Amino acid sequence: MVQTHNQISDSICAIATAPGIGAIAVIRLSGADAINISNKVFFGKDITQVESHTAHFGTIRDGEKIVDEVLVTVFKGKKSFTGENSVEISTHGSPYIQQQVLQLLLKNGAKAAGPGEFTLRAFLNGKMDLSQAEAVADVIAANSESSHELAMSQMRGGFSNEIQKLRNELIHFASLIELELDFGEEDVEFADRDDLKELVLKLNKALTLLINSFDYGNVIKTGVPVAIVGEPNVGKSTLLNALLNEERAIVSDIAGTTRDTIEDEIVINGISYRFIDTAGIRETTDEIEGLGIKKSFEKIDSASIILLLVDASSISKEQLKKDVNNIENRIEGKNKRLIVIANKIDKSDLTTIEAKFEGIENVIFTSAKELQNIDNIKEQLYHFVKDGVLQNTDVIVTNARHFEALSKANESLIKVLEGLDVNITGDFLAMDIRQALHQLGEITGEITTDDLLDNIFSKFCIGK
Amino acid sequence: MVQTHNQISDSICAIATAPGIGAIAVIRLSGADAINISNKVFFGKDITQVESHTAHFGTIRDGEKIVDEVLVTVFKGKKSFTGENSVEISTHGSPYIQQQVLQLLLKNGAKAAGPGEFTLRAFLNGKMDLSQAEAVADVIAANSESSHELAMSQMRGGFSNEIQKLRNELIHFASLIELELDFGEEDVEFADRDDLKELVLKLNKALTLLINSFDYGNVIKTGVPVAIVGEPNVGKSTLLNALLNEERAIVSDIAGTTRDTIEDEIVINGISYRFIDTAGIRETTDEIEGLGIKKSFEKIDSASIILLLVDASSISKEQLKKDVNNIENRIEGKNKRLIVIANKIDKSDLTTIEAKFEGIENVIFTSAKELQNIDNIKEQLYHFVKDGVLQNTDVIVTNARHFEALSKANESLIKVLEGLDVNITGDFLAMDIRQALHQLGEITGEITTDDLLDNIFSKFCIGK
Repeated sequence: MVQTHNQISDSICAIATAPGIGAIAVIRLSGADAINISNKVFFGKDITQVESHTAHFGTIRDGEKIVDEVLVTVFKGKKSFTGENSVEISTHGSPYIQQQVLQLLLKNGAKAAGPGEFTLRAFLNGKMDLSQAEAVADVIAANSESSHELAMSQMRGGFSNEIQKLRNELIHFASLIELELDFGEEDVEFADRDDLKELVLKLNKALTLLINSFDYGNVIKTGVPVAIVGEPNVGKSTLLNALLNEERAIVSDIAGTTRDTIEDEIVINGISYRFIDTAGIRETTDEIEGLGIKKSFEKIDSASIILLLVDASSISKEQLKKDVNNIENRIEGKNKRLIVIANKIDKSDLTTIEAKFEGIENVIFTSAKELQNIDNIKEQLYHFVKDGVLQNTDVIVTNARHFEALSKANESLIKVLEGLDVNITGDFLAMDIRQALHQLGEITGEITTDDLLDNIFSKFCIGK
Repeated sequence: MVQTHNQISDSICAIATAPGIGAIAVIRLSGADAINISNKVFFGKDITQVESHTAHFGTIRDGEKIVDEVLVTVFKGKKSFTGENSVEISTHGSPYIQQQVLQLLLKNGAKAAGPGEFTLRAFLNGKMDLSQAEAVADVIAANSESSHELAMSQMRGGFSNEIQKLRNELIHFASLIELELDFGEEDVEFADRDDLKELVLKLNKALTLLINSFDYGNVIKTGVPVAIVGEPNVGKSTLLNALLNEERAIVSDIAGTTRDTIEDEIVINGISYRFIDTAGIRETTDEIEGLGIKKSFEKIDSASIILLLVDASSISKEQLKKDVNNIENRIEGKNKRLIVIANKIDKSDLTTIEAKFEGIENVIFTSAKELQNIDNIKEQLYHFVKDGVLQNTDVIVTNARHFEALSKANESLIKVLEGLDVNITGDFLAMDIRQALHQLGEITGEITTDDLLDNIFSKFCIGK
């Protein structure tokens, strides 16, 4: 068992709702004795005798003293979230009461749950695989439509089903090859090498798609990094404000919900975009620093989308070409996109301007000051992400651990392919296949270590 | 109906758990259509067909899109907290999901609940009387053992049962007197004046006890105000730190619960004590301001307990007597207590010191610097409150509205008594009795106005 967690024979408890004062709070117990422990402090009904999935009104008492009037919901064995006896105690939402009830449960034999320990138990009890369990934390942390959708789809098994299927096919071949090894002296081939190669190629292709989806998955989860670069006085600050400002107003004001908005972040159709390194831009509308190539390249390197902002009324055709080429060279072969924003179109004749931009791709003509065509920029931002990276697969990897395991598994598969090409012996093939199986198994949790579980669940909040 | 609340025919919904990220969050619905509305967005089971008080796992969907995997608990009609159909949706605790589910419910016909609207409905549907409903907010706000106990006892009806009983007896007499008025010309007396006087005296005594308990109830709810007064350099700051410091360490650090501690507040046996006007004291250990009589009297006037701190090693017997007399004169006839703290006993011979304090009541000999007898001071603080005010009644008034209604009712009763003494006519008696009944009825909610309800429930949090 994992060191920082309780024995699975223990019954654990924790406050599961957000800290602070609410109308109600929920305290959760799980474990073989969860119902018995709750029954010691709950009065109104003998909840050891009730049906699973039923709610009961009564009081929590500490000896004679009534701690609270509560609603207790009982879940029995396999049918609960954790796969073991569980109780949810819905109390009045005062921190004082929450703490009193929690302490009372601890006094009566429950153990304080560690981070993610309820979900860990759901995994250990076979209610979900490891990648689904990990997605539970992502679901809770998701704060935009697309990051929420990805996490939800992973929690519901979308990603691990894919892995599971591929792994099972590979296991079939692995066992045939292992069988050959038992007949080592007899030089038999149970596993057809052409069929194996075909499967490994199929696996390799699928894994590559998944691995490539990580870039997209990652930006969805943490926001797409966008850089605004340009000479001084081209209107970077005005553009940034134009892009950000109207978003501020649509932050929901439904009472009781707060939506954290990160400064310099906008959400377009559920995908969030983070404007990076905007500190200098925001400070003043007339910044005096030059376009300093080095500083711009740093921004470009850490962005997925680059907005090159130019003063369309004053830039020369040559300078424009040079700037665009510079950036295109820098991002060549990388998964980055460039949008050229021709600003200040209100200050010059549009035909003259358009002539300058002939031959330049992805240009948007705007006046940031007059808020002209700002929506076009947003549309482009959205389409570059949606069409650019998402075209080949609809299963997305968002988790760095999965990305790493998939990459390692793919490396092993490539070794298998190389081995097949040079007619390597079965025992070496088997070794590489075993490696790949191991890596894939770590994703879904067929193969785990205590350290791995510890590492995963320590990032959870308590109560989940 | 109350203006700021929905029609009771509407079904209302709100997030009921504390705002922010938790493992889970609970969204609550109440109203005739609560189950139907939930059923439109919940998939997994037809919850219009399930038993009351049962929990069901499934998904919340917005069209094709899965918003979350949830647990839905259904409560039918009279058996719910509000006394009408209710649903609790337990979601993953992300603010994003909470908001999505809430918006989906609003889209499907639910109305956003106002502050305290669930509890208001519980009152309107006869599940609790008004004083019990008010106590729900107190239960949630209570942050010490004694304030929690008072609120809990009121929520469970302790206080209103008392009022109800007294009021019913008075109604009996009122109806007899009203009957007399119907026979106005015939000069009959159905209501025996001696019996009435006896009852009114009994009522008057009971109300006076309740009214007097408000001082205690109020300090329990908001903390007992304590003043430390004394000359410069007697050790006020050292004493304050000695009293406060060790408490800081025992603040619970159970993960997931935060206990708000107010600066300069200690909790002794569940009663909290607020040290008032300590700003000057805390700034320096060698404050130079004099005992400025006026400033000290201001502190004394706003405190329930006064700690007069003197330097026992240097004060003269005459000065001591003068100081104590000054304070005793100031608090005479008021519900205040004086404790004399003879500090710096480490700096002189104890026999000499004790001689000086002969004849002075409630003296505690300490060395604040050496932390000597600090516990004795705490014990005294506790007993002055516990024994001093709590001796005559165990039903405590904590609510300013109740205090006011009780006081007005008592005024009317005194008029009845005065009337009886001068053989006033039945119609005047009836008027005063009606007044008293009205005031008592407002406490439990037999008599309400929209303004009154509005005023009470607007102080609640949303979701309760």
